[in-house]
Amino acid sequence: MTLTSVQPTQLLDSSVLTPLRVALLGCGVVGSEVARLITGQAEDLRARIGRPLELVGIAVRRHERERPGIDPSLVTTDGKALVSRNDVDLVIEVIGGIEPARSLILTALQHGASVVTANKALLAADGATLFAAAEQAGVDLYFEAAVAGAIPIIRPLRESLVGDEITSVIGIVNGTTNYILDRMDTGGIGFEEALAEAQQSGYAEADPTADVEGFDAAAKAAILASLAFHTRVTGADVYREGITEVTPADIASAHEIGCVVKLLAICQLSPPAVPGGNDRTVSVRVHPAMIPRSHPLASVGGAYNAVFVESRSAGRLMFYGPGAGGSPTASAVLGDLVTVARNRLRGAVGPGESSYAARPVTKIGGVITRYHLSLEVADVVGVLATVAHVFAEQGVSIETVRQNGRGADAQLVIVTHHAQDGALSATVQSLRSLDVVREVTSVMRVEGD
Amino acid sequence: MTLTSVQPTQLLDSSVLTPLRVALLGCGVVGSEVARLITGQAEDLRARIGRPLELVGIAVRRHERERPGIDPSLVTTDGKALVSRNDVDLVIEVIGGIEPARSLILTALQHGASVVTANKALLAADGATLFAAAEQAGVDLYFEAAVAGAIPIIRPLRESLVGDEITSVIGIVNGTTNYILDRMDTGGIGFEEALAEAQQSGYAEADPTADVEGFDAAAKAAILASLAFHTRVTGADVYREGITEVTPADIASAHEIGCVVKLLAICQLSPPAVPGGNDRTVSVRVHPAMIPRSHPLASVGGAYNAVFVESRSAGRLMFYGPGAGGSPTASAVLGDLVTVARNRLRGAVGPGESSYAARPVTKIGGVITRYHLSLEVADVVGVLATVAHVFAEQGVSIETVRQNGRGADAQLVIVTHHAQDGALSATVQSLRSLDVVREVTSVMRVEGD
Repeated sequence: MTLTSVQPTQLLDSSVLTPLRVALLGCGVVGSEVARLITGQAEDLRARIGRPLELVGIAVRRHERERPGIDPSLVTTDGKALVSRNDVDLVIEVIGGIEPARSLILTALQHGASVVTANKALLAADGATLFAAAEQAGVDLYFEAAVAGAIPIIRPLRESLVGDEITSVIGIVNGTTNYILDRMDTGGIGFEEALAEAQQSGYAEADPTADVEGFDAAAKAAILASLAFHTRVTGADVYREGITEVTPADIASAHEIGCVVKLLAICQLSPPAVPGGNDRTVSVRVHPAMIPRSHPLASVGGAYNAVFVESRSAGRLMFYGPGAGGSPTASAVLGDLVTVARNRLRGAVGPGESSYAARPVTKIGGVITRYHLSLEVADVVGVLATVAHVFAEQGVSIETVRQNGRGADAQLVIVTHHAQDGALSATVQSLRSLDVVREVTSVMRVEGD
Repeated sequence: MTLTSVQPTQLLDSSVLTPLRVALLGCGVVGSEVARLITGQAEDLRARIGRPLELVGIAVRRHERERPGIDPSLVTTDGKALVSRNDVDLVIEVIGGIEPARSLILTALQHGASVVTANKALLAADGATLFAAAEQAGVDLYFEAAVAGAIPIIRPLRESLVGDEITSVIGIVNGTTNYILDRMDTGGIGFEEALAEAQQSGYAEADPTADVEGFDAAAKAAILASLAFHTRVTGADVYREGITEVTPADIASAHEIGCVVKLLAICQLSPPAVPGGNDRTVSVRVHPAMIPRSHPLASVGGAYNAVFVESRSAGRLMFYGPGAGGSPTASAVLGDLVTVARNRLRGAVGPGESSYAARPVTKIGGVITRYHLSLEVADVVGVLATVAHVFAEQGVSIETVRQNGRGADAQLVIVTHHAQDGALSATVQSLRSLDVVREVTSVMRVEGD
């Protein structure tokens, strides 16, 4: 691919400037919006980049669909040929999924194009291969749109906080599940009903698995953790529980202790075992959790996203905004496009993968957290002592216990102190085997304090 | 200054690498923290930059002070000589104020150093001169710490949202005034008492003028507006009212209409006069205002800062965190330092000033907003008609009016619809001259809906 170095004086007269050539892979909700903005905001983009952009091709899977506002002569079903062209400077990938996205991005990078992608699944599965290919080719790979839509979170983690030590990143990074949990909370309805509402309102897909089972959030968590801790983390490293088992009883229990239920992506750096030690580990997990109403994340409603970051020097930061949708995601893509275009004109590249810290990733059993449990118990003398003994056996300290009702309806509500997740999980197993425990009706982690 | 191009293979063995040499101007709360972090996080910074940093000098005003953790051999009172050295790559300016900061930065830039500054006053007063000098020298001028401390807001505006059209930026960008207003609100105390508390707690300076009169917020507003609207805006362009006149009655009035009082920095892009027209203008103002409790900015308490951004594609975003303090500000400075160091090693520069749009800046009279007014009125028949007539004369439409009390205590509380600030201001002038109006007890703009 050709890239002529630009002289500052050339910028004065755009008519003489060779445009930067852009190829777009994917023309769904995000892609079509990106295409419209490249055309509709052409003058602003030219002024901000210092060169005009020219959209030279749009790769799609099928030709038949109507695409309002898209020049049909640009549309092709041969993505491979498009990214192999020798006159393409910038490639935008908004197809999603692993293949053919990965092959197309790798081909584009190998041909010297800078790439902007919104593909969290691919980055979480195989980001290292992509970053290596970008570095090899000396070009950019940017992905602001891959996490939390329009919310600028990648650049703050990669650049603004790069002189600081990030200790935790906790995000509401999936709008679908936040919408469903919000509806369960405010509407007092069950998961199935809330999911149906979300599907009707366009907040959930016909097959909601990737969202409600936490796969989407887990991919984003892997990307956030990699950036925050300078350590390679893949989707497979992320402990994952979805929200399909969350019940109205869980949400009512959360209310009773001043909490709300959110699906959280939690990335944490452990404290060193000895002060100043270099043995810190990383944990990354996605699961529903109770968080106090006073926590900044608790008020993030509907399909909004937010990411809460704690670092040693900066303290507590929060980033909030729309986490999905064609326009917000297109905004993030366009921001990256301008940045990589400017880099290209200057013969520069932005930050690449930073995995020098290479910290070990802890399994869920080693994570330190708290549990909330509701138990249906037999109303017999000594039941609390029996239950408390099980906690003590696992070394789990109880913070509060409340006994509700009598007789057949007797219930124990327990909130633990911080303990290893493995010990908490073993405690729940033991409780389930006790004769005096009729049922463990709710088990949920408590976070954010 | 010397800058040898670095080969990727060199990065593998840091022992052979020439360090990047850093000069620090200022060693107060922020400067001393920056110096400590450069030393204390040396290994991480080296890994993230690809080269070690070496702090070669710290310019201070007076030599006498004790500086714990600072190597005394680095300290000098000759800042001019420090920035004129031929072996300095990166200069950090955390002196503040106009001079000698401006001369030192200009000298550093002219000598080919990249500069990181936290100096909002200087950038708002004379940013154009600094940006021109940086561009002339082909080096970076970065300033994340100048606005809202550790909150990454400069990079998101300059880079993440650069492909979007930002229509408004509303910020709580001064922690001192937010703390005072918060204390007045929660403690039911007056301005003077809250100020004294803030001074005792270290949230306000002995001379609080720059904060409470809104000068600090106005400088930040100028910087935010310049970035958001690609238009040169200086501190002198910013309409400014401080919080010294805010009374407990104002705060009580705000509560009555479901609002809180905040000192806001408001940067707005007007809609075009005709759809698609290129006649949009910019307005920039700092003043206390009532905002609805449901607005995301309403819950920003204490000395925290937050910036609320609206753009055409991304929608509504908010950035939240500590707005001041040594550590948070140092975090922002270090983030910039790593970025400009990386740029330097790659022979690249980041984005410079973008003022191509050059939109006219509107005076306050042309701003469209709403007013809340409380009037003590004579309890005579027809007083509402007389008052309403004054609004009608200025073309100001009333949204709600409430009459409290009777007799000598009769009070009218009025909230207007949107109107030009000039018309609203003229309305207040006319009301003050009416015989039936004993006193206009509270006038405040209502924002954020």
